[in-house]
Amino acid sequence: MHFCFKSSNSNKLTNCRLVLDLLPAKNGEEPTIQFLLEVVDILTNYVKKTFDRSTKVLDFHHPHQLLEGMEGFNLELSDQPESLEQILVDCRDTLKYGVRTGHPRFFNQLSSGLDIIGLAGEWLTSTANTNMFTYEIAPVFVLMEQLTLKKMREMIGWPGGEGDGLFSPGGAISNMYSVMIARYKYFPEVKTKGMSAAPRLVLFTSEHSHYSIKKAGAALGFGTENVILLSTDERGRVIPADLEAKIIDAKQKGYMPLFVNATAGSTVYGAFDPINEIADICEKYNLWLHVDGAWGGGLLMSRQHRHKLSGVERANSVTWNPHKMMGVPLQCSAILVREKGILAGCNSMCAGYLFQPDKQYDVTYDTGDKAIQCGRHVDIFKFWLMWKAKGTIGFEQHIDKCLDLSQYLYNKIKNREGYEMVFDGPQHTNVCFWYIPPSLRGMPDGDERREKLHRVAPKIKAMMMESGTTMVGYQPQGTKVNFFRMVVSNSAATQSDIDFLIDEIERLGHDL
Amino acid sequence: MHFCFKSSNSNKLTNCRLVLDLLPAKNGEEPTIQFLLEVVDILTNYVKKTFDRSTKVLDFHHPHQLLEGMEGFNLELSDQPESLEQILVDCRDTLKYGVRTGHPRFFNQLSSGLDIIGLAGEWLTSTANTNMFTYEIAPVFVLMEQLTLKKMREMIGWPGGEGDGLFSPGGAISNMYSVMIARYKYFPEVKTKGMSAAPRLVLFTSEHSHYSIKKAGAALGFGTENVILLSTDERGRVIPADLEAKIIDAKQKGYMPLFVNATAGSTVYGAFDPINEIADICEKYNLWLHVDGAWGGGLLMSRQHRHKLSGVERANSVTWNPHKMMGVPLQCSAILVREKGILAGCNSMCAGYLFQPDKQYDVTYDTGDKAIQCGRHVDIFKFWLMWKAKGTIGFEQHIDKCLDLSQYLYNKIKNREGYEMVFDGPQHTNVCFWYIPPSLRGMPDGDERREKLHRVAPKIKAMMMESGTTMVGYQPQGTKVNFFRMVVSNSAATQSDIDFLIDEIERLGHDL
Repeated sequence: MHFCFKSSNSNKLTNCRLVLDLLPAKNGEEPTIQFLLEVVDILTNYVKKTFDRSTKVLDFHHPHQLLEGMEGFNLELSDQPESLEQILVDCRDTLKYGVRTGHPRFFNQLSSGLDIIGLAGEWLTSTANTNMFTYEIAPVFVLMEQLTLKKMREMIGWPGGEGDGLFSPGGAISNMYSVMIARYKYFPEVKTKGMSAAPRLVLFTSEHSHYSIKKAGAALGFGTENVILLSTDERGRVIPADLEAKIIDAKQKGYMPLFVNATAGSTVYGAFDPINEIADICEKYNLWLHVDGAWGGGLLMSRQHRHKLSGVERANSVTWNPHKMMGVPLQCSAILVREKGILAGCNSMCAGYLFQPDKQYDVTYDTGDKAIQCGRHVDIFKFWLMWKAKGTIGFEQHIDKCLDLSQYLYNKIKNREGYEMVFDGPQHTNVCFWYIPPSLRGMPDGDERREKLHRVAPKIKAMMMESGTTMVGYQPQGTKVNFFRMVVSNSAATQSDIDFLIDEIERLGHDL
Repeated sequence: MHFCFKSSNSNKLTNCRLVLDLLPAKNGEEPTIQFLLEVVDILTNYVKKTFDRSTKVLDFHHPHQLLEGMEGFNLELSDQPESLEQILVDCRDTLKYGVRTGHPRFFNQLSSGLDIIGLAGEWLTSTANTNMFTYEIAPVFVLMEQLTLKKMREMIGWPGGEGDGLFSPGGAISNMYSVMIARYKYFPEVKTKGMSAAPRLVLFTSEHSHYSIKKAGAALGFGTENVILLSTDERGRVIPADLEAKIIDAKQKGYMPLFVNATAGSTVYGAFDPINEIADICEKYNLWLHVDGAWGGGLLMSRQHRHKLSGVERANSVTWNPHKMMGVPLQCSAILVREKGILAGCNSMCAGYLFQPDKQYDVTYDTGDKAIQCGRHVDIFKFWLMWKAKGTIGFEQHIDKCLDLSQYLYNKIKNREGYEMVFDGPQHTNVCFWYIPPSLRGMPDGDERREKLHRVAPKIKAMMMESGTTMVGYQPQGTKVNFFRMVVSNSAATQSDIDFLIDEIERLGHDL
């Protein structure tokens, strides 16, 4: 150790290195590099252990336990500085009590894994510490964003990769953009006059779609009642006839249908709505078609699986989160728009202090006025760097492998005793199932069984978290009681990890 | 060098390390650590040089130059993977052609500097690679956010630090939250029924305020015409009587005043609106008072300067960006709300798949349903760690020092030949001035002089960027032609850097 400890019963720092010794302090170079290398040592050890299956996924503590303070780790902030040694301890403890989302047995979220190139990209991004709003202060990143978005539009299938887009802070915001742009396309006067300048506008989205469409409806002034939910088939896909019926119904009521969201990879079922059939209806009724491919967009990189998004090239806008299926570190979400110029038309306010027209370079490269954000974090570099390092084929291999793994899981439990599938024939890596403990296996279907079964997944999940061995999500859906939703997006996961998960569910759930 | 080069005229990789050799590859530990350490070596060299005044702030290239490709640096993405060696070159070149926002002579934006603790915090954050929406996957970060927001509310002066809040992706989004919450407070039915459920609502904000209030007006369905701009005095502060007159005018027209934004530290002038007087008017007319302290909020940490925000405790909501005046790496912006529960009331959609009520821990710690985002980047850790390392007094010292430096600049140029101040008596670190080249000094005021003067700042700025020695912003404001806006938030800046800036402006501008 190169830094001293702060004595625990005093705020006095004796002979201790403090933040004041680091750069920009005079002679701060050496302690700065030394400190950063100590941090990197902590981080690389964490990385190594994360990939080691003998390490736990998490060391669970309740909020009150962490708030009361663990040994040597106190979350409270104080007026006086801590020593750098204590800062290193804080770093270690922060990781210790966190969750290893890169662990091969972490299956809890759509985003998982820890890509080393992506990680290096994030370290560089934070060292560059700049902002995407102008070419002036982010020349390289602005161009990387432009080129990468063009590649993504080419993969969508828009001619020549033409169009527009932005990286935004997550799929919910990307979806919000799509609704804003649709409104601007059909009712540009809403920008200046507000919603009263438009008739009663309605949006359509699947009952299985992400809640961000509804959130956008609430935030943007449509109202959630004007977000019409569409019925789905047994695999969670929108029924096109239901869309058309609801459009006709809305029109008969005097409302104005504006926007349809087709989900490419729903959150729970991983369902792909039939985009072509939905696009036909959108064309017939002159509606904006958005494809929410936050989760499923990555499949466009796979020659084997991209047919699931067939018709996506007919969309007016697409959400696609590389931070989900493509394993890019959080956050990395793109909103892609087919029509050029409309993003700026919708959002520009021409703030003179930021976007001066009389700069010495071509200011059409400045992106800030297209965004609803002012400052915008650099989310592109890690993704660009991963694409360089893997190539398109590397992403394809990753995606194919994850889908193969989930197929392995599906085949393994489909006919296994104690399992019931929520739906058959998964389209994405989502495999949804109930584990039926022996005590419920003979029980006839009915309220009692349903109530008991509803409690099984939460109980197993709680024990899983206490033991820290693996993590998988659960939820109810509609009238269906709590079931497990397994997803695979982690490049570290193997068949043995799938086997482990199933063994663990059975070990923990057997006596329930 | 530990990795080999890819031959430039072939896509074949011979004996080259590829991303496939890194973790999770079998035996990937050693190459992974080696690769990360090589990246860290690039980054720490960059950090050292950034603080070295003999290094340029930037090495400017036009977009077409970077797009055509510099030697060994090609932005295009391809189907095939690059070698790890090329990835390291790409990292080096990305930094080489970027802008050193941490350089002691980078004064271009409100966010500048490179805090070493903050940087370490970001490296850890990206290694942890998790998401703020649930305690389940971000237990430590969620608690850090809660405690830090409470500290910030205490500094605002809300009793017991009570209230609510979130870190959001930038001040524009934080301001957007404030408008959404205000609308929900007075017209909760807009959430379900849309803007047609409310009368014509109007928002008030200074003509000098940040454009995000207008953007929020456009996005949320109010319309920019319903964002009423308030007149300001010669120092850019809202004139309270103008607010009251415009409220009365709006009411007489049958509109419903809803929301007033008072700016604490405007973007260009650094003006602090008189919050107490504005709060009196808000109370009288029952309006929501938001304080946009994105830039000026940091002054709350300084006993000497916090009086500039006097009355902030009367606000219903406050935006405060630690990534600006407090030197926290990008991004770190908080929206703070006095009334508990209203943030969730406004935004919750109760998505069952994410926010299960039957978890084993106290789910009131889950934050996701308060946000308009679903995934939310961990912006808290770097800030928390900096607060630990500096203590409150460390932030205070940083802020006092920056304000002293800008006072030094102001005193230096106030009566210096060739300078005209845009306004006297700056409140924040913003010092706004025209440099008058000798050729314009004798010229009488009039259109010709104005037109010539308007071109001076862009010309100097262009030469500054070409020579790469320093960077400072300029813009017009209202009827005022282009002037320089100097701001100080970089802890590395000293009086000698201020002197350098002035010398450089005179060197570059003397013969214009």
